[in-house]
Amino acid sequence: MKITDMRVTPIAMGDPPLLNAAGLHAPYALRTIVELVSDDGISGVGEVPGGAVTTSALEAAREAVVGADPFARRANLAALEAIAGRLDWSRTTLMRVSSAVDVASHDLIGKAIGKPVVDLLGGAVRERVEFAAYLFYKDEGAGGESATGEELGARIDPSAGGWPAARHARAHEHDEVVAQARAMCDEYGFGSIKLKGGVFSPDHEVVTIRALREAFGPYVPLRLDPNAVWSVETAVKAGEQLVDLLEYYEDPVRGQEAMAEVARRLDLPLATNMCTVAFEHLPQSVRLGSERIILVDHHAWGGLLAAVELDRICATFGRELSMHSNSHLGISLAAMTHLAAASPSLAYAVDTHYPWQSDEVIVGGRFVFDGGSLPVSREPGLGVELDRDALARLHANYVRCGLVERNDEVEMQKTRPGWRFEKTRW
Amino acid sequence: MKITDMRVTPIAMGDPPLLNAAGLHAPYALRTIVELVSDDGISGVGEVPGGAVTTSALEAAREAVVGADPFARRANLAALEAIAGRLDWSRTTLMRVSSAVDVASHDLIGKAIGKPVVDLLGGAVRERVEFAAYLFYKDEGAGGESATGEELGARIDPSAGGWPAARHARAHEHDEVVAQARAMCDEYGFGSIKLKGGVFSPDHEVVTIRALREAFGPYVPLRLDPNAVWSVETAVKAGEQLVDLLEYYEDPVRGQEAMAEVARRLDLPLATNMCTVAFEHLPQSVRLGSERIILVDHHAWGGLLAAVELDRICATFGRELSMHSNSHLGISLAAMTHLAAASPSLAYAVDTHYPWQSDEVIVGGRFVFDGGSLPVSREPGLGVELDRDALARLHANYVRCGLVERNDEVEMQKTRPGWRFEKTRW
Repeated sequence: MKITDMRVTPIAMGDPPLLNAAGLHAPYALRTIVELVSDDGISGVGEVPGGAVTTSALEAAREAVVGADPFARRANLAALEAIAGRLDWSRTTLMRVSSAVDVASHDLIGKAIGKPVVDLLGGAVRERVEFAAYLFYKDEGAGGESATGEELGARIDPSAGGWPAARHARAHEHDEVVAQARAMCDEYGFGSIKLKGGVFSPDHEVVTIRALREAFGPYVPLRLDPNAVWSVETAVKAGEQLVDLLEYYEDPVRGQEAMAEVARRLDLPLATNMCTVAFEHLPQSVRLGSERIILVDHHAWGGLLAAVELDRICATFGRELSMHSNSHLGISLAAMTHLAAASPSLAYAVDTHYPWQSDEVIVGGRFVFDGGSLPVSREPGLGVELDRDALARLHANYVRCGLVERNDEVEMQKTRPGWRFEKTRW
Repeated sequence: MKITDMRVTPIAMGDPPLLNAAGLHAPYALRTIVELVSDDGISGVGEVPGGAVTTSALEAAREAVVGADPFARRANLAALEAIAGRLDWSRTTLMRVSSAVDVASHDLIGKAIGKPVVDLLGGAVRERVEFAAYLFYKDEGAGGESATGEELGARIDPSAGGWPAARHARAHEHDEVVAQARAMCDEYGFGSIKLKGGVFSPDHEVVTIRALREAFGPYVPLRLDPNAVWSVETAVKAGEQLVDLLEYYEDPVRGQEAMAEVARRLDLPLATNMCTVAFEHLPQSVRLGSERIILVDHHAWGGLLAAVELDRICATFGRELSMHSNSHLGISLAAMTHLAAASPSLAYAVDTHYPWQSDEVIVGGRFVFDGGSLPVSREPGLGVELDRDALARLHANYVRCGLVERNDEVEMQKTRPGWRFEKTRW
């Protein structure tokens, strides 16, 4: 089997004004969809964080991918690494390109042999994958507008009540965040909750966590992610108030040394998707003990094969896995579900931004969660098919919305003039 | 696809009187052959170190294996681990059972989908695999006799000259070992040489290495493996004489702490298949720096899936891979070749005892090396088929030879009365 064609399509999907330490989500989040077509006429798909740089790197990758055997996964990734060296890609770009090609190859292989992707990764160790409610402080609105205010994509009707209304609503204060959590959990059945922090003062965010604990009772695991904009002293001080409230404390501070110091001073499991985000960071992570939980992201670690190998490293070195998310559609959600199903060290409900999106690019529309979880598909490949009409519509959004990269700082400045990202804000 | 039958056949193959730190090889080496048959009528095979304990453990594993999906590799290994806990198997037994089931599952999957095993492990990163000449001090003879002296298996004709004669000949002195090396390299084309040491005094073995270096010139990599029966002081003293002679120094001393001390005191890469032999040993290996090279053995690490995950750990933590061997036949050789082909961190010619055997259990007879290497098969599965007549004959050998376990110490005592294994002999 040979790959005979590679199609690269940048898309933009509606995304609400979610606040985070880097600023504000733009009205559209960018993804790039990759299709690999084989000489058997089968095609496999992948989805990665998008924009102009990723898209053009994927175009440049075509020379290594077309003509390759999709089963030759390690050799194909090595070929991409060689191109990355020649074209001076950043590590992030290489990982995105690798992930797109790796996931699409797995989908293609699975479809060719009639087996789900999880079976190519060693087989399922669980039949369903649990996801977590991913809460954000946010401004009012639901995204889906171009830079000029023109409405392009699927919009949310705030008058509908329930989750659509909550998704549209502002959430700055603790009671607004609790309302968001209630609506999301009612709609999706999530049993774990993560709050993206690093937005308001640490005191404000501790109050929010306390409100969530009071609202949801003692048995719903809570997580807080200040995105590394707190100092060690701030993180320890806030952490002391959070010890009995959190399941884990995600990236309170920046860098492995600072994380290790917080780990030494607090009796609270630390998690990261910021300080240990590549295989080459693991030796220092092990030496310092910078975190107990690694949030794997196959888009950032170079694909599914690499990500299951990270699972073995976690099992070997006393780490646990959770899973990171970015704004994404159903192809990424399917890949995340297969990876989670093949990962014995996964010990937590998986992060997903999926409730924040209303667009979809797969046939049959959006995934439906049951009790906060998804079944692991037994269909061939990822178990999803590209909806070509939706792809065309979302590509038109990309072309028309005017965005070519994610820049949350610029977006934030539109409503908070003079706002600047700070590596350590508190 | 379901596994509907599991056949377990203990076999014995002729094995020459090879000397090592534990004693002497018996006239027969024991292996166990496992066949898994699917509801599609396809079968997959695996080969592991044998004897009564392994064979009965594999029989007990049938309850977990029959009815299982061969693709569910991780779940099937977890089921074996559960049985191991219930039946109080040793770690070695669990690893052998896991390896047999894992390899046979990979063969079955490969045959079912028409792809070589290497493609199930991420695809080949090399097209050929290089092997090393594995030299032994030995007594005269070629094995293949029962405990009562009755000749059962394939014998070697010492009058034939060349490798058959050298395989039969005694090799105690350095010139005898050089003659063995010449004959083996002439026959197989090997370009690297390993000497199993720990048999004679360190001085005697250093003289042998020096003689090999003189005979083969400066460009043939040499390795010495004293099997951990040297003290740290002895290993350092001998090592100082070996620094310019060896490619690597394998297990000169026992345990990770002692290896780490030798590593600190000598400018010579250390390798192990004795002190870091399981995933749970890796954290201390990393902490201490006990070796630079790990000799992976899929029979001892729990199968092919586990072994490729070890490759990623080596790449991540600055280790290299070489490959360990035990007396084996073609099924294991095929599995070793596929694993080596899928392992980017493999940096050395692979150990193999294969030249010491003359039996075979696969259709078409014994593998033929070209220039010391084997091509990576593109045939489905392992690329080998079980020869049922040969299997029956080797099983009859097992029944008649009277051996049920490997015990090199007892065998040694037959010619060296009173000889005892010592953990640190020199």
